[in-house]
Amino acid sequence: MDAGAAENAPTPPAPVGVHDEISPLRSVLVHRPGPELERLTPDTREELLFDEVLWRDRAEAQHRDFSDLLSGQGVEVLELRDLLVDLVADAELRAQLLERALDPAVLGDIAVQDLRGVLTAMPPSHLVDVLIGGITVGELRALGVSPRSIALQRVGEEHLVLDPLPNHLFTRDPSAWIGDSVSVSAMRHPARRRESLHLEMIYRHHPRFAGTGTPRRILGRDGAGAATVEGGDVMMLSPRVVAVGLSERTSAVGVERLAADLLEDGAIERVIAIALPHRRSMMHLDTVTTVVDQESMLRFGPLPALETFEIERPGDRLVSHARAADEMDEVLARGLGVPSLRVLTPPLDPYAAAREQWDDGCNVLALAPGRVVAYERAAATNEYLRGQGVEVLEFAGDELGRGRGGPRCMSCPVARG
Amino acid sequence: MDAGAAENAPTPPAPVGVHDEISPLRSVLVHRPGPELERLTPDTREELLFDEVLWRDRAEAQHRDFSDLLSGQGVEVLELRDLLVDLVADAELRAQLLERALDPAVLGDIAVQDLRGVLTAMPPSHLVDVLIGGITVGELRALGVSPRSIALQRVGEEHLVLDPLPNHLFTRDPSAWIGDSVSVSAMRHPARRRESLHLEMIYRHHPRFAGTGTPRRILGRDGAGAATVEGGDVMMLSPRVVAVGLSERTSAVGVERLAADLLEDGAIERVIAIALPHRRSMMHLDTVTTVVDQESMLRFGPLPALETFEIERPGDRLVSHARAADEMDEVLARGLGVPSLRVLTPPLDPYAAAREQWDDGCNVLALAPGRVVAYERAAATNEYLRGQGVEVLEFAGDELGRGRGGPRCMSCPVARG
Amino acid sequence: MDAGAAENAPTPPAPVGVHDEISPLRSVLVHRPGPELERLTPDTREELLFDEVLWRDRAEAQHRDFSDLLSGQGVEVLELRDLLVDLVADAELRAQLLERALDPAVLGDIAVQDLRGVLTAMPPSHLVDVLIGGITVGELRALGVSPRSIALQRVGEEHLVLDPLPNHLFTRDPSAWIGDSVSVSAMRHPARRRESLHLEMIYRHHPRFAGTGTPRRILGRDGAGAATVEGGDVMMLSPRVVAVGLSERTSAVGVERLAADLLEDGAIERVIAIALPHRRSMMHLDTVTTVVDQESMLRFGPLPALETFEIERPGDRLVSHARAADEMDEVLARGLGVPSLRVLTPPLDPYAAAREQWDDGCNVLALAPGRVVAYERAAATNEYLRGQGVEVLEFAGDELGRGRGGPRCMSCPVARG
Amino acid sequence: MDAGAAENAPTPPAPVGVHDEISPLRSVLVHRPGPELERLTPDTREELLFDEVLWRDRAEAQHRDFSDLLSGQGVEVLELRDLLVDLVADAELRAQLLERALDPAVLGDIAVQDLRGVLTAMPPSHLVDVLIGGITVGELRALGVSPRSIALQRVGEEHLVLDPLPNHLFTRDPSAWIGDSVSVSAMRHPARRRESLHLEMIYRHHPRFAGTGTPRRILGRDGAGAATVEGGDVMMLSPRVVAVGLSERTSAVGVERLAADLLEDGAIERVIAIALPHRRSMMHLDTVTTVVDQESMLRFGPLPALETFEIERPGDRLVSHARAADEMDEVLARGLGVPSLRVLTPPLDPYAAAREQWDDGCNVLALAPGRVVAYERAAATNEYLRGQGVEVLEFAGDELGRGRGGPRCMSCPVARG
Repeated sequence: MDAGAAENAPTPPAPVGVHDEISPLRSVLVHRPGPELERLTPDTREELLFDEVLWRDRAEAQHRDFSDLLSGQGVEVLELRDLLVDLVADAELRAQLLERALDPAVLGDIAVQDLRGVLTAMPPSHLVDVLIGGITVGELRALGVSPRSIALQRVGEEHLVLDPLPNHLFTRDPSAWIGDSVSVSAMRHPARRRESLHLEMIYRHHPRFAGTGTPRRILGRDGAGAATVEGGDVMMLSPRVVAVGLSERTSAVGVERLAADLLEDGAIERVIAIALPHRRSMMHLDTVTTVVDQESMLRFGPLPALETFEIERPGDRLVSHARAADEMDEVLARGLGVPSLRVLTPPLDPYAAAREQWDDGCNVLALAPGRVVAYERAAATNEYLRGQGVEVLEFAGDELGRGRGGPRCMSCPVARG
Repeated sequence: MDAGAAENAPTPPAPVGVHDEISPLRSVLVHRPGPELERLTPDTREELLFDEVLWRDRAEAQHRDFSDLLSGQGVEVLELRDLLVDLVADAELRAQLLERALDPAVLGDIAVQDLRGVLTAMPPSHLVDVLIGGITVGELRALGVSPRSIALQRVGEEHLVLDPLPNHLFTRDPSAWIGDSVSVSAMRHPARRRESLHLEMIYRHHPRFAGTGTPRRILGRDGAGAATVEGGDVMMLSPRVVAVGLSERTSAVGVERLAADLLEDGAIERVIAIALPHRRSMMHLDTVTTVVDQESMLRFGPLPALETFEIERPGDRLVSHARAADEMDEVLARGLGVPSLRVLTPPLDPYAAAREQWDDGCNVLALAPGRVVAYERAAATNEYLRGQGVEVLEFAGDELGRGRGGPRCMSCPVARG
Repeated sequence: MDAGAAENAPTPPAPVGVHDEISPLRSVLVHRPGPELERLTPDTREELLFDEVLWRDRAEAQHRDFSDLLSGQGVEVLELRDLLVDLVADAELRAQLLERALDPAVLGDIAVQDLRGVLTAMPPSHLVDVLIGGITVGELRALGVSPRSIALQRVGEEHLVLDPLPNHLFTRDPSAWIGDSVSVSAMRHPARRRESLHLEMIYRHHPRFAGTGTPRRILGRDGAGAATVEGGDVMMLSPRVVAVGLSERTSAVGVERLAADLLEDGAIERVIAIALPHRRSMMHLDTVTTVVDQESMLRFGPLPALETFEIERPGDRLVSHARAADEMDEVLARGLGVPSLRVLTPPLDPYAAAREQWDDGCNVLALAPGRVVAYERAAATNEYLRGQGVEVLEFAGDELGRGRGGPRCMSCPVARG
Repeated sequence: MDAGAAENAPTPPAPVGVHDEISPLRSVLVHRPGPELERLTPDTREELLFDEVLWRDRAEAQHRDFSDLLSGQGVEVLELRDLLVDLVADAELRAQLLERALDPAVLGDIAVQDLRGVLTAMPPSHLVDVLIGGITVGELRALGVSPRSIALQRVGEEHLVLDPLPNHLFTRDPSAWIGDSVSVSAMRHPARRRESLHLEMIYRHHPRFAGTGTPRRILGRDGAGAATVEGGDVMMLSPRVVAVGLSERTSAVGVERLAADLLEDGAIERVIAIALPHRRSMMHLDTVTTVVDQESMLRFGPLPALETFEIERPGDRLVSHARAADEMDEVLARGLGVPSLRVLTPPLDPYAAAREQWDDGCNVLALAPGRVVAYERAAATNEYLRGQGVEVLEFAGDELGRGRGGPRCMSCPVARG
């Protein structure tokens, strides 16, 4: 970022770092959904990981309510799109970003030839629309480029040359802060891989993350292969203990790689892997449980006890200890640093529980110990939480929830405490 | 039906019969969704043919608006649930219905032993709740029955012994009036087969369909195997011509069986089979096209021209004539009995078109020539229709639409004209 | 069957009945593979339930060796094809068979119109070739019939109008003798349903099964739906106890239906359902275990202990008792009527064991107590059996085994003892 | 490679390079199947890309016949296993190989910790058995290592820690000589990726490929992602024209990457991409067609005409020209450099043709113009070829063929002409 961009941020950036799940939320990264939602159709939704086709206007309005609620609580709300626009205004950074976003191993050499020129020449805001919303054969042709790639010569005008990133909505996943470092995720599905690139570029080069806002380390590497980790599975139990879900999205191999990185310099002393059932409804750890205060976790009713693994690095080798399913709560309490875990499970029958979990009833975002944001639709869960002394701030998210994610999924805390 | 029930209907039933798609709608059968929706969970939805888990309260309220809209237009609105309650109040009819609903070839002999007694003894309204909403192991146990079937001995309390019928919402499908006869559908998926039984029992035995309300013939048979036909694929183009979609749900074999029945007595002279692409988004013919007046059909934008087959029965054998895709509109015009077909396709780009079709934009219900009911969410389609001189009555159906069906899917016209 | 056919069988038919798995084998029904194998291609094999494309010449030759081995042991070898040819030589029986084989609910009304005439006029041997080998559009056209069915108007000359039955090779499955009755199977896959019809017609009408050869009862019904049972899962443990595998092919509902039939008249007093893992490699009970003498069962090494259910009918209701997996051997011993079960498991590592089981090492056919027929390829298993005092007669079956079936699968014992 | 190894190869290596498909075959790389085949079971075969479980003894014997046939024709037969044993005898090369074979992004950091030590210490021949045959938890434990990886803590003793490479049998695929360069393949399936590593190490470091045997360039890169190319799709039509199948295994993106590499230095002037149907039976281009002399290609009967793309690099950009399906033979003739292509298609009905193609009837290996090696099982194809003047050398390969590959798949020509 050149000096010009720095001028827009004359005061030093606010500090960064997330050392637990509940300390007062100071700064959060979100993404208001936009034109990329219009790429979701009955035919594309599966590949784009959506069960449903979202109604753009309603989703945008509901997300605005979410952002307003957060701002109203004094939280700095960073809009991903704005940060990206800042970034690509710089010619050098734009070139760097395009070099990696336009990957010939994904798009083919010919499509990269076709795209590079036209994207390099776009105004920043338009370019970000394309990076997030994708571009079709027809739209390229309207810009004067006649796509010649082998794959494209057999498809229609509406075929996407660069895919959209509608899952950017869920900013929790492509990166996760772990203490004063940030882990850039190796995403499970190709449909989300370019999201991580955007986050990495922002953390490396945007002035908000310069100076006092600089992450100590940026973890994560290219070519992760099967070693995937997504942020929705990462949970800071306490400043030196991280829990990670072994899920449909985060692999055992991915957890070992992350543990190797985290335990190396001693900032983290234990990684707890939690073996989730591999089901779409339990996509990430935070879809079945979230932390609401120092000793309490909200938990999906019919979730069985789960096997866990405690990973440490006593000398120069990783060591993992398997813990039987019935020790799960003990392992979590040890992670939180409390004598015993308080499990909050709304008293619902299995059908009602499954329905509210699907609607992200468990996926709350803590603003402070005992104060959380939730969808209003999870009425029974919210009422139960209040009965347990938890303050619940609600907003209508029924359209956002169709994308299978709640307040925690839609937010990447950048600073707490 | 005993005399008591007859007393509730002292005036002779209104006439029945549907000879086209657009003559003034006089009587319609619908089903307001109820407790069966609460059986939809992330794990059951696929088998129950839903992409999403519906919010019961909102769905019920939206369906009430739909019924009110129809009543307000002077249409007799028959509630399926009410008709079933009337029916099972009669001990003999209840026994007949249970004999067929509790099929040992589906449930096993032991489960049938367990269910028959307890269901026979239930009050009518509770029994109908079970027939439509299903019953679990736990609920049976609460009624004093300890299920012993082999399949059930290995499952939990929340396992369904009798499955729910959430698709009853779409009354268009399990039966279809063709002139003054009614075809009871051989449904494609096991999850819907008991729906047809309910309809058949109502048409045979409910006083609304006695006397002047009696169908001339009730078509359809058990053991249909691969010969499936669903009502959403059946379209009365004109009094003697029926179009039938060859779809994911209605098979070529099913169309031939239906054609054999319909053409036998000469009331119908031609069946037109339309070869739809087999895709969830084009589940039935009426999800891509519906008739809005004497010569006009609303049609999904990117729908390609489709091959059709005209089936007739000149002597004692069925004969089919294949027509090339480019003759489709001609075949349809001949079916409607007009010189040429007016195709109404909203001018949307392929993404927007696919999104509105998924939201049932094409699935309108004609109340009269040029007057249709539509979801308000299909804003662009509705605006276009108005520009073409069609009157569009809207209601909010975004929750209902998650079940993949619009106004036509949710209604079974019983009398028109 | 007319008098002419009776003249070919002047001596009364040999007695029938199978009261256990090991008494001396007197009569067996087999099917030498023929032209139907030539319908197996890379594209059809999956639907026809084969992993591989078989080499017809080698398969025929190996099957001839199998028949010769059985004849050489004094067993009456009934060739299914010969019995069918006898049957369709009778015009009345041919008409009956075609009426059911040409099912409009499977083929469509128009294809049935097209096929009935030409098949009625064929010489018996040719007709049986078509019933077992199927017939294509092109072959029909060569016979002067121009197929008009809707489904067929869009396919090529090589498309099958009537499907072949290559699985007839496995005569164990479409019927099973249980004492002096025979159960005609409700097959799991459409690709095998017409096999059962052939068997039922033979048992009802062929002179071999008349007089002293008549089954006491013929069980099994049409429209079985989910209530499937295949003969490979049926095992006569002792004269009044039948074991049935709950497998990929035989459903819990099917077992209950069969048990209801068998226990009704008291000839059988107990049905034991054995809950197999649902895997292709364990398709039927006899692919993982077979009885080799009064107290011994050959069993696949890595097979876990399995849950069982003992079904009886103390009064007028079926009652099932679940038995935990660790009681399996006790339940089987009780079924065999011996104090304890001797389990014969070759001492192989899990890889070798899985490989020999796949090659039908466990699927032996007992000719008498302690004397079995096996494939030579199962070298380690055969050697082990010999070490245990079992006499093993081998033949080369590597091509036959590609169809996933061994000596027991390829034989339907009609009389033992 | 140390001096000791060099002593074994005192004469300079024979020249390398493959400039067409038919010039006299001088040197070929093959792999005799061994213990890795014993890892194929019903449960592993799908992931390992086999339809069937192979009989090791017969497969080995048949492969020995194949090698003998080639040697007997004066061809240098290089055994992959021998080359690898030479390689790992060198401590430095062994370390390099293990560094890449034991990839923490595939195996996890903990498994790599566990494996590295024990593999480093193994004798060369044992190590190669493990690299090709894999190693299980139980086998590791027998070597004194107690595997601690998270993924492994939940599996049995027979679980594979390092997967076997049974597809090494098909040496055609992991690399392909293109002129005097060699392309190391980016394989489609994880089950085959380590094969390419072995080939790359051999080409870079084995003395057979040193000096006069050195490839001019070694193409191919890590992290290929979707850009896959397998050797079975690569065909040298003439010294400067390469055809590549766009198949289930080779992607459009992969072809563009390869073309970018090949066309860069002008040694190759045209790459022809051929759009195959994506079906298992047409896995690679050489499963449907192979070159038998200067102007003739053997071709699978029912193969439709296929769309092709001619890719060139007139300036500094790749340009592709789409050619309609009916121009295929013209494009191929131009590639071969002959006025017109002679297509050799055995006159078989579609069923017989599909069956012989499945049995690798088309997958012949040319020893010289008009002289090919074929499986004896493809009797009709071989007879037809002889009638056309082609000399056919046969060997029995029915067991090898179960792996879906014929003589061309099992050989990587290293030098021709």
